[in-house]
Amino acid sequence: MAVIRSQGLAGVFVPVLTPFDSQLNPEPKRLVAHCRWLLAHGCNVLAVFGTTGEANSLSVTEREMLLEALLRGGVEPERLLPGTGCSALSDSVRLTAHAVKCGCAGALVLPPFYYKDVADEGLYRNYVEIIERVADPRLQLYLYHIPQVTKVGISLKLIERLLKAYPRIVVGMKDSSGDWDNTKATLDAFPGFNVLPGNERALLAAMRMGGKGCFTATGNIGAGGIHRLYECWTSTEADRMQEKVNKLHGVFQKYPMIAALKQVVADHSGDAVWLNLRPPLLGFDAHQAASLRQELELHGFSMPD
Amino acid sequence: MAVIRSQGLAGVFVPVLTPFDSQLNPEPKRLVAHCRWLLAHGCNVLAVFGTTGEANSLSVTEREMLLEALLRGGVEPERLLPGTGCSALSDSVRLTAHAVKCGCAGALVLPPFYYKDVADEGLYRNYVEIIERVADPRLQLYLYHIPQVTKVGISLKLIERLLKAYPRIVVGMKDSSGDWDNTKATLDAFPGFNVLPGNERALLAAMRMGGKGCFTATGNIGAGGIHRLYECWTSTEADRMQEKVNKLHGVFQKYPMIAALKQVVADHSGDAVWLNLRPPLLGFDAHQAASLRQELELHGFSMPD
Repeated sequence: MAVIRSQGLAGVFVPVLTPFDSQLNPEPKRLVAHCRWLLAHGCNVLAVFGTTGEANSLSVTEREMLLEALLRGGVEPERLLPGTGCSALSDSVRLTAHAVKCGCAGALVLPPFYYKDVADEGLYRNYVEIIERVADPRLQLYLYHIPQVTKVGISLKLIERLLKAYPRIVVGMKDSSGDWDNTKATLDAFPGFNVLPGNERALLAAMRMGGKGCFTATGNIGAGGIHRLYECWTSTEADRMQEKVNKLHGVFQKYPMIAALKQVVADHSGDAVWLNLRPPLLGFDAHQAASLRQELELHGFSMPD
Repeated sequence: MAVIRSQGLAGVFVPVLTPFDSQLNPEPKRLVAHCRWLLAHGCNVLAVFGTTGEANSLSVTEREMLLEALLRGGVEPERLLPGTGCSALSDSVRLTAHAVKCGCAGALVLPPFYYKDVADEGLYRNYVEIIERVADPRLQLYLYHIPQVTKVGISLKLIERLLKAYPRIVVGMKDSSGDWDNTKATLDAFPGFNVLPGNERALLAAMRMGGKGCFTATGNIGAGGIHRLYECWTSTEADRMQEKVNKLHGVFQKYPMIAALKQVVADHSGDAVWLNLRPPLLGFDAHQAASLRQELELHGFSMPD
C-alpha cells in the first residue's frame, strides 16, 4: 500500500467525511480518528475536503485548522490529497500553498464554480494563477471534474493546454461526472495522466485502460472490498468482485450519499456527532435511517470495527 | 434621495464593480472613488460585493478590507448593502455579522450555492443559522435570487417561511432571475416585502405594483436616467423614459456585462486598472472593445464626468 510519489498517487482514494459538533463546528479529533481508521481499512489516499467532505461549507481557516490537526494527529502528508479549489482565486491560492507547505502528496482543485458559461480561457487562467502564485515545484495538482455539482466542467482541450504548460505539476484528474465515456476519452487522450473515476463502479474498467485506481465515497464505511479489487484486478475473479462492489454502491445511490454515509458511521460508532451536516445539507430523519438500515441488513453489510 | 431605514431601502441600487490592480488584488482607493461617484450620479444604494462586483472571486478578508476602506473613505454605511452570502455557512455568518457591526443598511445574502438540488429545508436552515448566529436586531437581510448563476433558487415557500419566522429581519429580495412572472408573483404574495428587480427593465412595472426601486448594473456608468424614472414613475412620461432606459440596457445585454462595464469605466477614466477582471472572468479583447465603443457612440451615450 506504499504511495510512490514519482509514479503519482494510486489505489483507493476516499473523499473523507467531515464531522461537525452539535454547534456545527468541524471536529478535528473525530476527523483524525476517522482518517486513521480509513487507512487501516483499505484506503490508500485521504481525499479530505472534497464534495463528500462538505468542503465548500467550510471556511478557509477551518480547512487549514483541520489539515494541521491531521498532521499533528500522525497522519502522513504523503497520504493526503486535500481539496483546495474555491470560488475565489485568492482562497484557492492560499489553500493550495498551504497544502504544499504541509507536504501533502497533492491538491485536488475544483474550477471556480460561481460564474457559469465561462470560457475555457478563464478557467485556464484560474489554474495558471494558482500554479504561478503557489510557485512551488512540489505542487502535484489534480483537476476536479464534477460538472453535475459545479455546473462548470473541465474539457479535454483545457486539460491538454494545462498539460502542455505544466507537465510536471498538473498530474491527474478526479472524474466525478459519472460519465464513463468522458473518463475513457480522458484516459485515451492523455497516457500517463492520472485519471481517477469518481466512484468504484468504474474501477476495473479504468484499471484495464491503464488507470491507477478510483475514488470511493462509500469507502468511508470500509474500502476493503474495493481495495481487494484494486489489488487483484488482473485475476479471473475481478469481474465478480466488481459486481459485488457495485451492489453495495447501488444501495447508497438511492440516498443522499453524504447523509447516508454519516448515518452508517453514527450507527456503527454510537456517536451522534456523525449525524450532523452543515446546511444546506441535511441529515436523515428516522424514516430514512430505518430504511437504509434495513437495506444494508438485507445486503448483509456491516461496517468493520 | 434620503434613505429611510424604517421603510427599508429604496431607489436605485447599483451592484458596484470591483477594481483589481495589475496583480489582480482588489484596489480599495478606486473602489471608494467609484462609490462616491455613483452616489453623485443617481445611485441610492451601493450594493457592493454582488455578482457584478465579482464578490465570489474575493476572499472573506478581502471583502472585509474593502468594506472598511469604504467607511474610512467617507461612504455612509446607511448607503451600503454588501453581499454577504457564501458557499460556506461560517463565511456567511462572519461577513453578515461584519456588515451589521459596520452599520450597513442591510446585507444581501445568496443561498449557499455549491450543492445542487438541495431541499428548501436546507436553505431555510442556512438562513436561520446566519440570523441566529449574527443575533443582532439591526440585521436587515435581503435574499438574493439569481438562479441562472447559482443554480439554487429561492422559492415563494421559502420566503414565506422566513418571513413568518423573522418578519423584522428578512425584509426584502433582489430578484435577478430576469423572470418578471417571478418578480410579480413575489410582489403579489408578500405586500410590504421589498422585492427589487435585478435590472432596470422592470423598474416601472415593479413601481406600479408597490415596488421600491430596482437594481441596475449599468448604473455603474451613470444611473441618472434610471433615477429620473424612479423619481417620476407616476408621470405621463414614465413609459417613454422606461423605453429609453431599456435601449441602453439592450446594448449591454449583447456583451458579457461585467467586462463591458469595466471597459466603459476604463475608457472614460483613462485608467487601465479597470480593465482587469479576476479569473474565471475575462476582460475584453480589442475587437470587443471597439465594437462596444461603436455601439455606444451610435446610441449617443457618454459616461458623465
